[in-house]
Amino acid sequence: MPRIALGLEYDGSAYRGWQTQAHAVAVQSELEAALAEIAGHPVRVTAAGRTDAGVHACSQVVHFDTEAERPDRAWVRGVNTHLPADIGVRWVAHPGKRFDARRSGVARRYRYLLQSSALAPVLMRNRVGWTWKALDLEPMQAAAGCLLGEHDFSSFRAAGCQARHPVRTVTEVSLARRGALIALEIEANAFLHHMVRNVVGSLMVIGSGERPSGWLADVLQARDRRVAGVTAPAAGLYLLGVRYPAPFDLPGPATTPAFASIPTGE
Amino acid sequence: MPRIALGLEYDGSAYRGWQTQAHAVAVQSELEAALAEIAGHPVRVTAAGRTDAGVHACSQVVHFDTEAERPDRAWVRGVNTHLPADIGVRWVAHPGKRFDARRSGVARRYRYLLQSSALAPVLMRNRVGWTWKALDLEPMQAAAGCLLGEHDFSSFRAAGCQARHPVRTVTEVSLARRGALIALEIEANAFLHHMVRNVVGSLMVIGSGERPSGWLADVLQARDRRVAGVTAPAAGLYLLGVRYPAPFDLPGPATTPAFASIPTGE
Repeated sequence: MPRIALGLEYDGSAYRGWQTQAHAVAVQSELEAALAEIAGHPVRVTAAGRTDAGVHACSQVVHFDTEAERPDRAWVRGVNTHLPADIGVRWVAHPGKRFDARRSGVARRYRYLLQSSALAPVLMRNRVGWTWKALDLEPMQAAAGCLLGEHDFSSFRAAGCQARHPVRTVTEVSLARRGALIALEIEANAFLHHMVRNVVGSLMVIGSGERPSGWLADVLQARDRRVAGVTAPAAGLYLLGVRYPAPFDLPGPATTPAFASIPTGE
Repeated sequence: MPRIALGLEYDGSAYRGWQTQAHAVAVQSELEAALAEIAGHPVRVTAAGRTDAGVHACSQVVHFDTEAERPDRAWVRGVNTHLPADIGVRWVAHPGKRFDARRSGVARRYRYLLQSSALAPVLMRNRVGWTWKALDLEPMQAAAGCLLGEHDFSSFRAAGCQARHPVRTVTEVSLARRGALIALEIEANAFLHHMVRNVVGSLMVIGSGERPSGWLADVLQARDRRVAGVTAPAAGLYLLGVRYPAPFDLPGPATTPAFASIPTGE
């Protein structure tokens, strides 16, 4: 059966995460129901990354197989008419049978938005993580460099993580500030469960001055989840996109500036 | 009775606008209920501007009178504990009995965010107006200049507008683009009902090339609502704040950059 790839944007606020589970509304089941309407048969999709409850995606990538022959606009605009307003197909592609949205991915890119302000955000309440603590960007930037390269990230791995091993390669990490918001952008071949949110939780401890910037390298070397900071809230995390080998010719991660949009009361 | 002023941030998506009406959930009634919990008596508030259904505020200003003596933190953090997550008090002030949130205001500032993209926004769906048409920024910028100064804005006035006369003074107007988003920022002594959204609707007609930039001045001079463009969607409009005479010493409009926040799938 021909294989189809889709790029998806979603607001994770209302969902128990990507993956379909019993008695929980998941992005996956909403998408599969909408695809079935267009395909005329049940559809199972495979995603590049299983985002957690409350985590957003600018460009999640999925694939599925179907004999149904439909024009591309049916797989985008047609499917969108059957999706709720907080999930949308952005593009469709035909990468061939050798493509697998999860296994073919060579890199994932995430952004984390963290608001530091005396009062909790209102307009941005489901779009950022929040701390009342004042954060100093420079020691956070100095600390983050130790994440680059291939490391055992056990210290930033959730207890329930199902990965076969804890070694990942971080190829890019940067932090920037604009007003009350700090944005972390990070790319790796793959991520462990909660890895980005656990890194952000530890960077917050450094930004608030509770630990020096060198502490992050100590945490990394300890390979022990108990020494790291808390898990930062899901609401601030965005899957920006996935990179695949060039022959598949698929759109890469979203390239919007880290700070690109709405005014806040700050 | 002593008079208290509050600055409010709210997400208008879930409300039928600022003003309390029968059988409709309004921001005003939510705030008055929360204030009554802290004051220990019924409270009526007066707002600087009555925002419509779906319109947001970064800094709406209200006043009310109370004999209740409470520390400032009670009027901010205390009230916030009784407010839903989409409404938040940002500051409290004591401007004296001569202050009136509506009548003392010498200027109001609004921002309108307009997304131009083939597909409707998902993450930003309740935060921007949207058009599928491609928009050219330069003719929109050239057109907007004609709004500056004192004019009869009848062409941009809603049918139900209750203002005594249609003359307003626009002191600042600017447009900027970032990626798929265009931001209009406009300040005037006051605004007619739907005035900003009607101006945006006409600017869209110019940006899409259906009319030349000089057309906006023609519309303005016509003093006839029927010649202008459509009313742009409420979701893109933000009350940035209100200016009061210096002796009242109140916070002015929010100063966040026009584009300050979340990534989109664009």
